[in-house]
Formats: sequence, C-alpha cells, structure tokens
Amino acid sequence: MNEIMSLESLKCHLDKTWEELFHHSRFLRFVKEGKTTKFLYAMYLLETYHYTYHNARNQALVGTRKEELDFQYQKFCFQHAAEETGHEQMALNDLKNLGLYNEGVEIPPPLPQTTVLIAYLYWISQHGNPVQRLGYSYWAESCYEYIMPLMDQVTRSLGLTRAQTTFLVAHAEIDKEHSRQVQHMINRVCKTTRDWQDVTEVMETSLKLTGNMMDSIYDQYLEFENHSSDRYSFLRSLVA
Amino acid sequence: MNEIMSLESLKCHLDKTWEELFHHSRFLRFVKEGKTTKFLYAMYLLETYHYTYHNARNQALVGTRKEELDFQYQKFCFQHAAEETGHEQMALNDLKNLGLYNEGVEIPPPLPQTTVLIAYLYWISQHGNPVQRLGYSYWAESCYEYIMPLMDQVTRSLGLTRAQTTFLVAHAEIDKEHSRQVQHMINRVCKTTRDWQDVTEVMETSLKLTGNMMDSIYDQYLEFENHSSDRYSFLRSLVA
Amino acid sequence: MNEIMSLESLKCHLDKTWEELFHHSRFLRFVKEGKTTKFLYAMYLLETYHYTYHNARNQALVGTRKEELDFQYQKFCFQHAAEETGHEQMALNDLKNLGLYNEGVEIPPPLPQTTVLIAYLYWISQHGNPVQRLGYSYWAESCYEYIMPLMDQVTRSLGLTRAQTTFLVAHAEIDKEHSRQVQHMINRVCKTTRDWQDVTEVMETSLKLTGNMMDSIYDQYLEFENHSSDRYSFLRSLVA
Amino acid sequence: MNEIMSLESLKCHLDKTWEELFHHSRFLRFVKEGKTTKFLYAMYLLETYHYTYHNARNQALVGTRKEELDFQYQKFCFQHAAEETGHEQMALNDLKNLGLYNEGVEIPPPLPQTTVLIAYLYWISQHGNPVQRLGYSYWAESCYEYIMPLMDQVTRSLGLTRAQTTFLVAHAEIDKEHSRQVQHMINRVCKTTRDWQDVTEVMETSLKLTGNMMDSIYDQYLEFENHSSDRYSFLRSLVA
Repeated sequence: MNEIMSLESLKCHLDKTWEELFHHSRFLRFVKEGKTTKFLYAMYLLETYHYTYHNARNQALVGTRKEELDFQYQKFCFQHAAEETGHEQMALNDLKNLGLYNEGVEIPPPLPQTTVLIAYLYWISQHGNPVQRLGYSYWAESCYEYIMPLMDQVTRSLGLTRAQTTFLVAHAEIDKEHSRQVQHMINRVCKTTRDWQDVTEVMETSLKLTGNMMDSIYDQYLEFENHSSDRYSFLRSLVA
Repeated sequence: MNEIMSLESLKCHLDKTWEELFHHSRFLRFVKEGKTTKFLYAMYLLETYHYTYHNARNQALVGTRKEELDFQYQKFCFQHAAEETGHEQMALNDLKNLGLYNEGVEIPPPLPQTTVLIAYLYWISQHGNPVQRLGYSYWAESCYEYIMPLMDQVTRSLGLTRAQTTFLVAHAEIDKEHSRQVQHMINRVCKTTRDWQDVTEVMETSLKLTGNMMDSIYDQYLEFENHSSDRYSFLRSLVA
Repeated sequence: MNEIMSLESLKCHLDKTWEELFHHSRFLRFVKEGKTTKFLYAMYLLETYHYTYHNARNQALVGTRKEELDFQYQKFCFQHAAEETGHEQMALNDLKNLGLYNEGVEIPPPLPQTTVLIAYLYWISQHGNPVQRLGYSYWAESCYEYIMPLMDQVTRSLGLTRAQTTFLVAHAEIDKEHSRQVQHMINRVCKTTRDWQDVTEVMETSLKLTGNMMDSIYDQYLEFENHSSDRYSFLRSLVA
Repeated sequence: MNEIMSLESLKCHLDKTWEELFHHSRFLRFVKEGKTTKFLYAMYLLETYHYTYHNARNQALVGTRKEELDFQYQKFCFQHAAEETGHEQMALNDLKNLGLYNEGVEIPPPLPQTTVLIAYLYWISQHGNPVQRLGYSYWAESCYEYIMPLMDQVTRSLGLTRAQTTFLVAHAEIDKEHSRQVQHMINRVCKTTRDWQDVTEVMETSLKLTGNMMDSIYDQYLEFENHSSDRYSFLRSLVA
C-alpha cells in the first residue's frame, strides 16, 4: 500500500476497501438485490451478538497494556469501552423483536469466521502497536455511511420499524460522535510512518474479516434454506 | 471471619483492620510521631507512583473478563478506570514540587512489597470472583477518612501546600463520589455469602499488603538514613 | 459438517479440506506448475518464521489454562511446546543457506494474513474448549503426507539439498512421532460430540487460514516481481 | 542487598533468608518442637495443593512470553513445567492416605496468604525480567536440604511411611536433578547485575511469602483447635 500519513488518505483507502467488499461480497450483493429475509437478518444478528460481546472487552484491553501510553488515548480506550458495554444485548433485543429469540433459547456458537474476527481484534489490541486498534474503530464507527442505504433497504423489505432495529439505528447515532473522537485520536497518536501503516493494516484487515464473516453467514443461509444444515433450525421452530 | 453480608458489617471489619494496621505499622507510627521528612515522603510517593501506575489497568481488566458480567458493573469498571487514568503522574508531580524529581531521572524499580501488592491486585482482578476487586476499591476510596489526620500532619510538618500534594488532595475529593459508587455497586453485585466473603477477603488482604508496603518503605528509609543502601541516594543528589 | 466422532472421519474431513485447498490455492497451483523461485521460497520461509515463532508459545498456553485439565494432556502440551521451541530458527537458517538472510538484516513484519493465523491460534489455545488446539496439531503434524510431493518439486527445481531445507525435512521426520501422539491424545480427550466438533472446526479453520497466508505470499510475490511493492526488495539487494 | 553475582553469593543469601525464616516462623517453630498433628499437616497439604496447582502453569508462562528468549531457557521452562504437571495431586493423595480427603469432598479455597503467593508467582513469570522466576525455582528445588530434618520429624511423629508422604519424598528426589538444572540455567541466563538482582529479589520474596503462608496455616490451626473457625471442620468430620 502507498504511504498513508493522513486521515484523508486513510479515508481514501477505506473507500477503496469498501468498494472491493461491495464488489466481491456474496452477502452484500444478495442484500442489495432486496432478497433479505427475516432468517438471514436473524443469522446476521446472531453473529453480530457474538463479536459485539467482545468489542468493549478488547477495546479496554488496549488501555491495560503494561507499557506507558498517551494518557488521553488510554482514557479514550476505557471511556469508549464503557460506552460500548452491553451493546451485544441490542442485537439480542432486535432478534427478540423479530420473534426469533426468547430468553433461555440456546444460541449456536459463533461461526468460524466470526471467531477469526474476534481472535484478530483481541490480538491486535493486546500485542503489537498499541495505537493500531484505532484502525478497527475508524471503519466500524463510520460504517453507517457505507451500509446505511443497504440497511434501509433491509428494514423496509422486512417491514421493520426503527424501534425494532436498535442495534443499527443506535449505533448509527452514537457513532457519529465516536467517529469524530476516533479521528481526533488517530491524528493525536499516530506519529510515525509505522503508526499509520499499522492503523491502516488493521483497518483493512478487520474490515475484510468482517466481510468474510458476512459471506459465511450467507453460505450458512443457503444451507439453512436447503435444509442441508440444522445449525439454525431453532429459528424455524420459534416461528412455527 | 464472621459472616459479613452488609455494608455496615463490612465497614466494621474495615475499622478493625485499620485499627490493627495503625497499631502494628512502623511507618504509620513514625508518621504519627511527626517525624516524617521530605525523604520519607518522597519514598512513599515513589512507591505510590508504582502501584498507581497499575490501578486503572487492573480495574479495567475486571470488565474485560470473558464471562458474562452485570452490565452496570462492567461499565463501572471501565468508567472508574477512565477516571483513574494517569493518576500516577500526580505522584511524580508532587515529587517534582518537592524538588525530588526531574524529567529524565531514573526511578528505582518498585520495592518487593509493592510488587506483591501490584501482583495481588492483578490476580484478583483477572481470576476468581469478578466482584472481589470492589473490596480493594472499598477501602482505597474511603481511606482518607482514616489517614487524613495523618496526612494533614505530614503536609504541615513538611510545610507543603495543597497544590504540592495533588495526589492526596485530589484523591480525597474525587474519591468521595467514587466511594458512594463503590458501595452502591457492592450492594448491587454481592448476591451470595461467597460474594461478600470474597469482597471482604480482598479488602482485608489488599489493605494489609499496603501496610506491608508502607513498613517496607520505612525500613528502606532507615537504611537510607544510615547510608547502608544507595537505592535512594539519587534523592540526596537532587537536593544537593 | 456431518458428525465427526472418530479419527477416521476426521482424516476424511482433512482430505477434503486439503483437496479444496489444492484446488483453490493460487500459491499451491503455482508451485505445482514448477514455477517456484528462490524469492517465492524465501517469502514463504519468512512467513513461516513469523508464525512458527508463536507455535511453541501458544501450544504451551493450552497447558497453562486455569481450569482443571487432563494431566496427560497438560503434560503433552508442555512437552510438545518444548520440542517445538526454537524451530523458527530453522526457517531463518534455511533462508541463510539460500543467501537470503544475514544476522542483522531486518525482517519485514508478518503479512496481515499471517497475523490472522497467529491471532487465531492464540485465541483457540487460550479460550473455548481446551482440547480444540489438537485440531491444528492434527493437520500440521501430518501435512507432509499432503505437501511432500510438492516440496520435493520445490527443492529439486531450486537445486536444494536436504541440509538446506532443514525446516521442512526436520519437521517431516520429527512430526511422524508427533502425529501419532496427537492422534492418541485426540482419542483420549475428545469425549463429547462438542469436543470432536471443536477439534474439527479448528482443524479446518486453521488450515484454511494457512491457505490464505500462502495465497497472500503469492500475491506479494507478484507485486515483488512487478516491482510494485518494495516490501521484499531487501531480498534482491542480498543477492546482488 | 549487596551485589550478588554468583551462585555462591546467591546460596549465601538463601542461607540467611532461611535462617531468618526459621527464627521468625511460628509454624516452623511449632513443627520443630514436635507438636505437629495430623490436622496441622493436613492443613499444610491443602495449601500446598493450592499453590502447586499453579506451579507448572506459571512456570510454562515464562516460556510463552512474546519477547525473544534464550532457546535453552525457553525449552527448560516447558520441560520443567511438564515435569511438575499434576504434582498437586500428590498433595491430595497424601491427604487421602491420612484419611483426611475423599474424592468429592469440597476443599476450602486457598488462604489469602496462599493467594498472595500464587499471584506473585504469576506476576513475576509474566512480567518483568523473564529470568527472574529462576529465583523461585532456586530455593524451591533445594528446600529439602533446609526442611528435610523438620519433615523427618513430622513424618516420624505422625507415624507416616514414605508411601504416605509422596509429595515431600518425591519432590526431594526429583528435585536434586532439577536443582542442578536450575543452577546451570541461572549461570547461563544471568548476564547483568540487574539479572542477578531480579533473581535474588524473587528468591527472597517468594520464600518469605511461603513463610507467611505457613504462619497463616499455623494461625488457622490455632483457630481450628479453639473451635473458633469452622473453615476446616470437615477434617474433623472425616476422622469421626
């Protein structure tokens, strides 16, 4: 990748990464074509629940590293973690609103690709350049700009209200402010070429791993529709 | 220990533990007798710097545990960590105000007893009952009630102003509010006898380890005064 | 995936996963076509160095988990880690024998896909089902059966002797015995359907992530050949 | 402490630390006076079980540190961990042989002073100078020289056979060889004054913490004899 040493070029690189993702992703193409069903959306919410469960945790871990950290950055890590705490519950609530979850229903474990995303976020939070997790926050907090049109389409085609899509709507709103803070922090803590490279690498890699997770959901959905896997058959029984 | 199942009996047990500490501590006795010197205070600030460096970190680690946590408690852990971030710097600033620290001066590593305290706080934050670190916060946030008279004496005898004792003064003020939050949280998350026992054990043990640290500072101070150790001789050279 | 509850069906599933990998991998196809160059091999050894650096470490971490473990399994984890210690050095030695490394040359950081593999291996070693890392060992210790023909081709086409390919040759030999131990251990510790599923999932996922790493090396190699990236230009300068 | 830069002076310092311990320890004095009972020994075995549970684990963690380690030292950490695996079971077996443990009996949690020892060993294994845990191994592997006379007295006064004291006897034998390895390793990896200081500090501190643990067992024993605590009353009921 070319030298990225400013928020502008980082944004440029993000645009490009999203573009490729939109081009290659089986999941995003399917959604774009308006074919989303309640079940696909439910399967997306389940994986969202799984990785979101860990987001506040791995965010906070950055601030617990033993080396000396910029105090503002360390504080940001903890405050940001505090704000993200419990957000996984929104995903479950939205599932519940769809009639596809009840307290006590046992949720299938994360898909392998979701586990890979989770593992990567912990690793880059705990090891390597402490500033690099900002690369994940950078795209995650601004993703609504890219996927909101898609999400509008999903909620319309499923006939969902804002109150039924708390995870997406709440995040879109909360995250505008977060997004500004993340950008401010990147500018503050990235001092060397290596810092910018590490942030860029984590941005690109974590977005691609999220893409892999989405495609894996799509593949599972096809198996579900073909009745060739019973991993998600509990969803059918809840509806029945 | 008898069954402690309320904040009242916890407070009672804390009173008793402080009483024993005041009775047995060589450090506290020495301070009480008004014999504190700039150097003893400096040595206390150095160890304070060392363990405080880790407090926000180990506090946040409680919230990063993989098991499901009460969301309010998890959020409290991160917020509390955010508020404690960088407080170690206050200890260094106070040292600087005493003329006993300059940027670039290499600080001796923590005393073994300080390392033991740090190790214990990490362990109980990361392992065992997730609520138990509240036992440390419980006494740490309310310690000013117990040691303020002593500290007033120190600052008076050293002729220090409030502005020169930011660590103690700032903490005394911030921590009134924290103290209320900690008590609220203990009441919220302690549901079983075991929870109360674990909080009580950590309260008592971490306070005693802090006492050991203080006595260890006192012992070092005697060696310093007798010129039988050169661990802190840099303090003399800064004054000279 | 169908229910895998025996070494036979695990082997079957591994055959299938390798088959798919051989079918889809740009790297493996290129190698198969006899097009390997010294530079491609060097780039492969560099990434091998990076993930092998962590293998003994994450293997041992399984045995350090706080929960009670089967003692034989725990001991196996430590012994296996002891045997893998320092193997990353073999990759560097082989590089040196190719004239593509000297003590003191700064090695580029791992490729993102290598970091993803490393992150995943740490995660599954430290979290989730403690037996699941055996799924990685299972394919890694037996991979020579699958890739040896390919490797023979590589060494022939590069004119390398056995002494120049210590990483591969040594592993092929050591790992026959390891492979038996790993199979014995899987049979010993997998007691439930979930155990077998977790081992199978880690086997498949870690092999696929290794495939991603290899394709990423291939992509980097094309950029290197096109002079469109200078990440590996130090290799050229060593040869010049 | 004076400069310790050789095994000889380390041994000298260890002699002195043991001497002080023998002088101050309420537990050791009581044992020396031949007053040991089955119950005191049982309480000692219970705490031994608790900290030994973690010894192989924290030993192995040294070898999993992310920084580059001397390969021989790293291998030693894993091999040593393999050899210590499951030794906590010996303590339970010895308890069983005394008629003071049955499978299924719930063991009380570690005493606070035992937790402090455990916490310290994890901390110094995972943080700070990677060579420093050798300071713990150094005294632990050679402790039989110091405490064997005492232990002989205990086993005689309780009428125990070698087969009933597997933990102590087995360790005394295994550890002669370990002791040689530990000394070799200290000589190999300690290169600077700081290395020797760190090993010495961990040696002294971990031995003192073990002393604190023993005195804490003694205090508990008095409470048990006075019926002022029911923490160990299950021992009485097993005998009754």
